[in-house]
Amino acid sequence: MISHPLNQIIEAADRAITAEDFDTLLDFYADDATLLVKPGLNAVGKEQIRRAFVAIAEHFDHSLVVKQGKMIVIEGGDTALVIMETLLETTGKDRLASATTRRGTYVFRQSADGGWLCVVDNSYGTDLLQESQTI
Amino acid sequence: MISHPLNQIIEAADRAITAEDFDTLLDFYADDATLLVKPGLNAVGKEQIRRAFVAIAEHFDHSLVVKQGKMIVIEGGDTALVIMETLLETTGKDRLASATTRRGTYVFRQSADGGWLCVVDNSYGTDLLQESQTI
Repeated sequence: MISHPLNQIIEAADRAITAEDFDTLLDFYADDATLLVKPGLNAVGKEQIRRAFVAIAEHFDHSLVVKQGKMIVIEGGDTALVIMETLLETTGKDRLASATTRRGTYVFRQSADGGWLCVVDNSYGTDLLQESQTI
Repeated sequence: MISHPLNQIIEAADRAITAEDFDTLLDFYADDATLLVKPGLNAVGKEQIRRAFVAIAEHFDHSLVVKQGKMIVIEGGDTALVIMETLLETTGKDRLASATTRRGTYVFRQSADGGWLCVVDNSYGTDLLQESQTI
């Protein structure tokens, strides 16, 4: 199978999360991107997104490792919807390891130069529907 | 709760599918939109999308009724990721009724005039990961 450019981009972004290299990480986001931190809590724009990742790193006691599973890219109208498995491995303060697989949904926008920037980062995917009301 | 404009837009698009009013339906799509017809089969652009909806209507013996369940909109960078329940009711040639609920994922792009057009229509949501290989 031919790899999509977004495969490498997402892999690099996940490496930056694992390394807590937030300067590099923020380069993958558009200025007006939205990160769904948890159901009901959105971070909008790079400043809020940076603060969210700092808080997430703290929350997991700096042990978070993010990896990719299966990934499907559907391009349409200068955007791409990415459906993928995101694997989260953590070690808590109690040294107990845990691993979670989420089925995330991400929207990327292509710039005139062909580069891709993340505009919507929703690692919860359609599981959001389990805990929400109709809006 | 305050309704998002996309709620009414999607409701109107679903009414057009049910009525098999494909001219109206296509007005909701960008010229370069992608419709995921079924896993592994994409329709790209209005001509292919129209043909796909004609085939879908035939497939369900003109009995398809589409309704909306819960809907969540996450806006970012002139786009919106819509996560929603799509309810499909059909009556087959054997007159047996069936109802399916999908958790779909849709990407809309906002134009300069504030209007929204669908650029990626994936009613299968993250279920796509069940039947795919890594790409």
